[in-house]
Amino acid sequence: MANLELSVAPMHRIIKKAGAERVSESAAKALAKELEEVGIKIAKEAIDYAMHAGRKTVKAEDIEIAARKAIGK
Amino acid sequence: MANLELSVAPMHRIIKKAGAERVSESAAKALAKELEEVGIKIAKEAIDYAMHAGRKTVKAEDIEIAARKAIGK
Repeated sequence: MANLELSVAPMHRIIKKAGAERVSESAAKALAKELEEVGIKIAKEAIDYAMHAGRKTVKAEDIEIAARKAIGK
Repeated sequence: MANLELSVAPMHRIIKKAGAERVSESAAKALAKELEEVGIKIAKEAIDYAMHAGRKTVKAEDIEIAARKAIGK
């Protein structure tokens, strides 16, 4: 996963929002990588749900059910 | 969580990268919300690990161990 879709700046903000005093650049990059992996996993599940419903368009309801399944919410 | 740090455009790209033909705007927003929640969860764990190691700076190693714990990798 060389080319990440998520940029580093919002990762810094998320880690700060969680309460961090200081965040290393590599930590922000690591979070981008982890979240992109989770995102792909959720999206793949969501595509299965959309197809099962006879749709080619992924909708919010597909993402929501997929997230519950993929990350055990 | 009214103000999301993650923007919608990379969410579209992630869902497309996962193989979707079409993605609704609300699906992209839903993924941003889910990933931000996961990001905060991972970051909070990572902060605990950093503090436990006597650091105020969150490093990549904290994010990686926190991701394994928070999302069961």
